[in-house]
Amino acid sequence: MDLFQLADRIIDCSAGSDKQQGDSAAVRDGRRTPTDFSSIYSKDLLPASGCDEMTKEFLQELLNILLAYICKSSRRSAKVLDFHHPHQLKEGLEGFSLELPDQPETLEQLLVDCRDTLKYGVNTAHPRFFNQLSSGLDVIGVAGEWLTSTANTNMFTYEVSPVFILMEEVLLKKMQSIVGWSGDEGDGLFCPGGTISNLYSILVARYYFHPEVKARGMGALPRLALFTSEHSHYSVKKSAAVLGIGSDNVVVVKCDERGKMIPADLESSIVTAEQKGLVPFYVNATAGTTVYGAFDPLDDIADICQRRDLWMHVDAAWGGGLLMSDRHKSLFCNVESSQNDGGPLQCSVILIKKRGLLQDCNELGAEYLFQRDKPYDVSFDTGDKSIQCGRHVDVFKFWLMWKAKGSEGFGSQVNKCLENAEYLYDQLQRRTGFELVFKNKPEHSNVCFWYVPPSLRSLQPGPDRDTRLHQVAPCIKRRMMEKGTVLIGYQPLGTKVNFFRCVFSNPATQQEDVDFLLNEITRLGEDL
Amino acid sequence: MDLFQLADRIIDCSAGSDKQQGDSAAVRDGRRTPTDFSSIYSKDLLPASGCDEMTKEFLQELLNILLAYICKSSRRSAKVLDFHHPHQLKEGLEGFSLELPDQPETLEQLLVDCRDTLKYGVNTAHPRFFNQLSSGLDVIGVAGEWLTSTANTNMFTYEVSPVFILMEEVLLKKMQSIVGWSGDEGDGLFCPGGTISNLYSILVARYYFHPEVKARGMGALPRLALFTSEHSHYSVKKSAAVLGIGSDNVVVVKCDERGKMIPADLESSIVTAEQKGLVPFYVNATAGTTVYGAFDPLDDIADICQRRDLWMHVDAAWGGGLLMSDRHKSLFCNVESSQNDGGPLQCSVILIKKRGLLQDCNELGAEYLFQRDKPYDVSFDTGDKSIQCGRHVDVFKFWLMWKAKGSEGFGSQVNKCLENAEYLYDQLQRRTGFELVFKNKPEHSNVCFWYVPPSLRSLQPGPDRDTRLHQVAPCIKRRMMEKGTVLIGYQPLGTKVNFFRCVFSNPATQQEDVDFLLNEITRLGEDL
Repeated sequence: MDLFQLADRIIDCSAGSDKQQGDSAAVRDGRRTPTDFSSIYSKDLLPASGCDEMTKEFLQELLNILLAYICKSSRRSAKVLDFHHPHQLKEGLEGFSLELPDQPETLEQLLVDCRDTLKYGVNTAHPRFFNQLSSGLDVIGVAGEWLTSTANTNMFTYEVSPVFILMEEVLLKKMQSIVGWSGDEGDGLFCPGGTISNLYSILVARYYFHPEVKARGMGALPRLALFTSEHSHYSVKKSAAVLGIGSDNVVVVKCDERGKMIPADLESSIVTAEQKGLVPFYVNATAGTTVYGAFDPLDDIADICQRRDLWMHVDAAWGGGLLMSDRHKSLFCNVESSQNDGGPLQCSVILIKKRGLLQDCNELGAEYLFQRDKPYDVSFDTGDKSIQCGRHVDVFKFWLMWKAKGSEGFGSQVNKCLENAEYLYDQLQRRTGFELVFKNKPEHSNVCFWYVPPSLRSLQPGPDRDTRLHQVAPCIKRRMMEKGTVLIGYQPLGTKVNFFRCVFSNPATQQEDVDFLLNEITRLGEDL
Repeated sequence: MDLFQLADRIIDCSAGSDKQQGDSAAVRDGRRTPTDFSSIYSKDLLPASGCDEMTKEFLQELLNILLAYICKSSRRSAKVLDFHHPHQLKEGLEGFSLELPDQPETLEQLLVDCRDTLKYGVNTAHPRFFNQLSSGLDVIGVAGEWLTSTANTNMFTYEVSPVFILMEEVLLKKMQSIVGWSGDEGDGLFCPGGTISNLYSILVARYYFHPEVKARGMGALPRLALFTSEHSHYSVKKSAAVLGIGSDNVVVVKCDERGKMIPADLESSIVTAEQKGLVPFYVNATAGTTVYGAFDPLDDIADICQRRDLWMHVDAAWGGGLLMSDRHKSLFCNVESSQNDGGPLQCSVILIKKRGLLQDCNELGAEYLFQRDKPYDVSFDTGDKSIQCGRHVDVFKFWLMWKAKGSEGFGSQVNKCLENAEYLYDQLQRRTGFELVFKNKPEHSNVCFWYVPPSLRSLQPGPDRDTRLHQVAPCIKRRMMEKGTVLIGYQPLGTKVNFFRCVFSNPATQQEDVDFLLNEITRLGEDL
């Protein structure tokens, strides 16, 4: 069993301050044979009494598995994924059964399951994983998550999360100052993902203009309209549906060829909406669109919003990182609310410029949780700002990463990703068979391109070529998944047929990985 | 520096399958002195090349800190908390600074910060932490979270989360069968907390009766009304506000003395709402209320809902665990949707009886993520069912816990918590100075009581006694937080002045801890 390769380590984590807790003889002599977990169960771990050592040994063994995975993740020779179809995994590959038993299983079986879970998963930390906006594994971020789950507490009150609540305050203030807000304004929260952050922005904007909505609902309001670009994230429409505004009342504003919102079209869309009897209240601008990585012209949009008294939100889930780079932060300006992602999943923030609004919008003052007669300053019980009750501690990993890198470290990490994007952009222009989806240099780390196999290169632009080109990326992707050596995403967009989108956010990625990607696409696609 | 007490361990995790990765001589000889992290930075860890060993040593050191914390957590002699006011923590106690630097800090400093974060936090795993519904630390659950954050992927598609997506399917089906739904019906999702699960239930119910709401918003609908009991969780009102239904349109149904919804009051409330022109569509029944732990009469409520064609949801965030106990599962019946919490935070599920509705309600079909031309069965790309885009992997820890305990193990864990509650209930009746808030035996593990200090015992019931009794629990709680030996919550409810609520969900808690709690309350409160 492969487990024993990992278990076959010389471990001892028993010495030091816990010596009084009953170290076993086998452990005390500094070296020992691997623990046999084949007749040990979870009932033999803490909190059962006298189980300190067994708990340590089990978690040590898990650590060994995780360390092996982390080290393997960074090796280029390792696979990005070992693809199996759903039915194959369900059938129980090599004994890996997903089914849940009535009787407990041994710790040995659990450790085997952990290894298998990692084995059949996708290695998002691999230097050649380009498939998603989030990639890479920050060791400090992982350390932060391990501590967070060990502390296992909840963000609703200072009473149960004193340190994490204060860390959230410190981080939000820091982010607000980077966005350019002064010290006494600004509010915010960590949210379970960027889509929920966008939802908060619409929720708070609606409440700002129409506070009666909280008690009386949308029935008491005129028909609202909000605006976002055709390249913006689908979460704006999704949130409008959830919030009872309706996805039809999201007006889609046109973009230029580069994927940036056209301010004149925003302005005319607002006028048209008003003429139809709708009441515009909110504009979402995107700093780093999902596919093209485009930055909407924030200054121009801000002017329009100010002139017309509309709430301006910046969805910076993808582009927010550029604020950390001195070379690239000029793309931002002042806004009403903003959201940012970063760190291992989940790690997203909503920032609101108007202090107190989040609390007013969402508070219900449940007395079992938010008592006013507590022995400390209850303004630190920030849980009622949230639309959740229990809220996961997402802040710690990010706080620890900031300590580890410093503001400067974040900046250089961003710069490195953008350099990789520029390198790919250059390579695409030099190599035969590749075509850029848009000509300009990337503003962010997204680079969008087609691979055109030799058989299509002589075809004239038109529907026939489009139909055939549309099938190239999915076919190459399928082969890629079977090989498992690299992973990149594709999609159509508007009138453009399926193209590859390469994004760089993984600090492990080097120029050699970019070369590998292009070589692999060519190798897998040249016969198509 | 205390860190070195922890660092002073004999560790070696270098042997085995990764030997080729360049073990240092210091490590290879099986024992070594602690690594000096005082000049090492995060840039010296993976993905930087040649940093496998340093990464392992850093994470090993973190593990030692976490293991020491886990072992200490279960010791009764350790404090539950070491309370400090916000301003004290902000000032930087013993050098623990929350501020974020421009320059990177050393790994040594980060490890010290990790220790301080745990030191000044609240030990929710302590056998005497009774403050929140969720308490205790499940070692297997923690192991699951560590693996989850190491795998660092996202639940949106099978493409990037093959194993976790299938585990979610397996777990949902298992939970559906326990709720009593047949194999081919039923749908669901893991959600970021019980409040969001409740929000899903209202969202889906609204869509079921009025699918036009998705595109056209609440403006296209009649004025909806939903129903929940006065003892139910505040998340129902909060969700109604978020969804644009309005908290005023949540009709609060009366409860009996025991905290259970009165079916006759539900029926008359529905009639009254209809007479006012509202359109009832949804009833939330609670299986285990937050404060009293009461179970609404689910069968009676189901009858009313069926007769009147209303959606019935069961909020089982707290009481759902009883489904795992053969002795207590009779409290449940068939329902339209249901939600359950369990495992380390966050771990919550929404179950929907009508298959396909979640997808129809929430899908937007973003082409960059949910391509239809993928090389596998894309019905496993379940991300578009969610109101999130990125979704944290909450399933794995719960799956691993289930493997570890088996269905039977969950059941006996629940039974033990209920035995503790019965023991407390008995003790309260035997001891002087304690009064039960309601007389009946607890249905769940909540036990609500007053401590009446000697000076109040001769007072007649009435406003004067109430005013003084109202101040007792907060005062004892304040003293408790200062001592840090035990933690329990209190609240007023309706006309009842502040009382203690003791809840049992921590497997570490024994009867001796119940005795300690009552002794401590007496000791801290007898002079009041």
